[in-house]
Amino acid sequence: MIKIFDTTLRDGEQTPGVSLTPDKKLRIAKMLDEANVDIIEGGFASVSEGDFQALKLMAKENLNAEVCSMTRANIQDIDTAIKTEVSGIHLVVPTSKIHLEYKLRKSMDEVLNLTQKCVEYAKKHGLIVELSAEDGSRTEVNFLKKFFKVGIQSGVDRICICDTVGVLTPEKSYQLILKLKNLGKPLGVHYHNDFGLATANTLAAVKAGANHVHVTVNGLGERAGNAALEEVVMGIIHLLNFKVKIKTEKLYELSRMVSRLTGVPVQPNKAIVGENAFTHESGIHTKAILSYPLTYEPLTPEIVGVRRRLTVGKHAGLSSVKALLEKLNIHPTEEQLNEIFRRVKSLGDKGKIVTDSDLQAIAEAVMGLPQIRPIKLKGLTVTTGDRITPTASVRLEVNGQEFVEAGVGVGPVDAAINAIKKLGESIADIVLEEYHVKAITGGTDAVVEVLVRLKKGDKSVTASGAHEDIVMASVEAVLSGMNTLLTSYFKQPKKNNKNS
Amino acid sequence: MIKIFDTTLRDGEQTPGVSLTPDKKLRIAKMLDEANVDIIEGGFASVSEGDFQALKLMAKENLNAEVCSMTRANIQDIDTAIKTEVSGIHLVVPTSKIHLEYKLRKSMDEVLNLTQKCVEYAKKHGLIVELSAEDGSRTEVNFLKKFFKVGIQSGVDRICICDTVGVLTPEKSYQLILKLKNLGKPLGVHYHNDFGLATANTLAAVKAGANHVHVTVNGLGERAGNAALEEVVMGIIHLLNFKVKIKTEKLYELSRMVSRLTGVPVQPNKAIVGENAFTHESGIHTKAILSYPLTYEPLTPEIVGVRRRLTVGKHAGLSSVKALLEKLNIHPTEEQLNEIFRRVKSLGDKGKIVTDSDLQAIAEAVMGLPQIRPIKLKGLTVTTGDRITPTASVRLEVNGQEFVEAGVGVGPVDAAINAIKKLGESIADIVLEEYHVKAITGGTDAVVEVLVRLKKGDKSVTASGAHEDIVMASVEAVLSGMNTLLTSYFKQPKKNNKNS
Repeated sequence: MIKIFDTTLRDGEQTPGVSLTPDKKLRIAKMLDEANVDIIEGGFASVSEGDFQALKLMAKENLNAEVCSMTRANIQDIDTAIKTEVSGIHLVVPTSKIHLEYKLRKSMDEVLNLTQKCVEYAKKHGLIVELSAEDGSRTEVNFLKKFFKVGIQSGVDRICICDTVGVLTPEKSYQLILKLKNLGKPLGVHYHNDFGLATANTLAAVKAGANHVHVTVNGLGERAGNAALEEVVMGIIHLLNFKVKIKTEKLYELSRMVSRLTGVPVQPNKAIVGENAFTHESGIHTKAILSYPLTYEPLTPEIVGVRRRLTVGKHAGLSSVKALLEKLNIHPTEEQLNEIFRRVKSLGDKGKIVTDSDLQAIAEAVMGLPQIRPIKLKGLTVTTGDRITPTASVRLEVNGQEFVEAGVGVGPVDAAINAIKKLGESIADIVLEEYHVKAITGGTDAVVEVLVRLKKGDKSVTASGAHEDIVMASVEAVLSGMNTLLTSYFKQPKKNNKNS
Repeated sequence: MIKIFDTTLRDGEQTPGVSLTPDKKLRIAKMLDEANVDIIEGGFASVSEGDFQALKLMAKENLNAEVCSMTRANIQDIDTAIKTEVSGIHLVVPTSKIHLEYKLRKSMDEVLNLTQKCVEYAKKHGLIVELSAEDGSRTEVNFLKKFFKVGIQSGVDRICICDTVGVLTPEKSYQLILKLKNLGKPLGVHYHNDFGLATANTLAAVKAGANHVHVTVNGLGERAGNAALEEVVMGIIHLLNFKVKIKTEKLYELSRMVSRLTGVPVQPNKAIVGENAFTHESGIHTKAILSYPLTYEPLTPEIVGVRRRLTVGKHAGLSSVKALLEKLNIHPTEEQLNEIFRRVKSLGDKGKIVTDSDLQAIAEAVMGLPQIRPIKLKGLTVTTGDRITPTASVRLEVNGQEFVEAGVGVGPVDAAINAIKKLGESIADIVLEEYHVKAITGGTDAVVEVLVRLKKGDKSVTASGAHEDIVMASVEAVLSGMNTLLTSYFKQPKKNNKNS
């Protein structure tokens, strides 16, 4: 059983621009504990008052996981950690010549003495102690051995090698672990991702005999981050066939939570937890997936708590377009399907994401279905400012009848959408499930892309809006999704629509 | 010399939701060519009219790189590729049992015959042919050898193994290449990233003797994407000590361009090209970096065309706060510095990014400097709508005098910022260099975070605004940055301010 040492709340929080309040740290720690992480490094007690408080909260929570604080090799840091009442410390001591000379400004002997003193002090105070060799991967192996032996003689419970600047390769990691694994205490690795190899290096260490691995959710951490929890765990299970205690079906939820609370986005093409990890657009892939998922998926998405998504665009194939139309309860003839397919590709060629609403519009045009848009925007005015309650008036035509609604909100978008939400009974049960604005970069005149997912009963659809005005883009997206949900053939049971 | 085969414009473009117009494809191809990529897979000629046109444009451009189109194993695909006038094809043929049975529905012999027919046809038409075994990593090695031998006898120029669902490990990749590298033609690898191992597996292949590697900028591609160009290239050079032709100093620019044109964000903790790859916040790290960069950086950032950034927050150390204050021309006493430091940490503890403007405000408060804010917001009204030209009126007090300005724009934010920009001579040369809105997720009432970088002459500062109203957040950020640029001690030469 390989143990998982999660450092999302310590090294992960050292991600530039990331800072978690004690309350948020506790929420993440609880979720890590639910996912069965073995050890949680909750912070660095000496770094700030907030971290100190966060560790205190975690210590009180009686989690199943061991909670520890990072400390440097000084008694003051250890004393501060003791005061938080966590059960252990992660004692990080630089060992490489470059770190001793330029950072610590101490000799090798001084480092060994200091280590002995700190470990003995911590053990005397009843702490579980994990001793890490910082920049261990650039340290001479003989000194590493000496260092760990001093630690073990002084009473440490676990030892760990850090690849602090991420320069290992899987082969070097494997060889390094072989040399250090028989020192008598569990050996772990703490690897960074500067060359994109943190996961591979960590897996190589496990293969060589490492007992525990330091990871962070979404691979957060200094610079290019640490080895990602979700990648390492799935690799250990599925590629190495070793066991871990983790509940893998929590991985996706954990990833989203950490992304939301840290504000660090997960790129869509991130392994295991990226939005696209189990999304298929290309026709070749989608067709095969519909026939037999393992053709293009190494894992069943449910294992990590995700649902497979199919999307259509310029690379779409006939079968995926057909599958999505069926979801919309639209059943074209073969000839119609071919033409819908052609238009989807052509829209995709223009660089557009083809949402459910787009697909509906294309199908209607091709099949000569009545283009029923129950809701039409007849007028929108939004005002905001520094001393103004953001206010919107919306004039809509709903099934031929005009309504005017007004709404206020925390900002102009919120006001406009609130006004729309107030609409009559008929659409009151439409829920805005997801509202997402792609990051805006470049200038204040960039086109803003809004993607929404709306739900009514058990039906849900995606729609989008693109406009230089974020208010207009949002309104466009929401109305377009509402209209798709309200078209009659979508509402009726499938069998009545076979003729369409 | 290892050759780089870039498939950003083919596999990378198959990223769900990504679609590049022919014009954008050409721009990326030119940039790839400038960076000295050896082979550019520009698209899949048969997939859409847009891709066909894009390949035609690239073929006409006379790039140094070889341009090729993907094709499946059918004559029609090859004919379409020929019509684009590109110099080669990347012929992808499934070889695994699972792909033959569930996708292609052909026997092994049929596949071999088809391959022979297609390769001969393509060679007869003067094309360079690279033959890929799709799902090769899940194919029996003996059949792989047979398949490649048929291809080589039929005249292919290069062969390639695809790890289509990303299930290889570095060790397996190494062993596989050893078995296949002596078939008589250059051997490449095309690896996917489902377990986060694409880069490691690609490097292992190079070590075992692979001659070329398929990569994409930012690791785009189906699902979790392909091996990332920037990671593979830097790994080949710095970890394996092999040579490539790539101009590495173009890597960052290339990454930004592809991110902008595809709309796919690069997560900040992405190796090599992520915003944080060379950013340091933690005090321990920053102090060491300022003394000797190699303590915490495996590469000099300039090698990949990036500049190192230091930021401060809850993990800040004294030395980084001091360095940033010096950049702002603020010179506190030691005692003042300690207090500024304490307040920076405390602000960081609340979860805030500490920008230059924040740092200035803290320093002023601590040092008793006059809190000069030349510009004060006295009133802002913005109106937008579907039939309204987005219009803003701004009332500002500039150095005690009130001005009212109005502006229009493409949306409410643009109108407000334009109104502010119109301000008098004194600040007319302030340029808004960067305007960035973090992706908004959750709902229309989420807090919007705006980060700006403003420049005046050779000084540049960062500032931020956070508000549920995107207009207010933007105005807040811009005014705060302008005020920092306009404070007197920042404008004056350093020596006049030693007393401050």
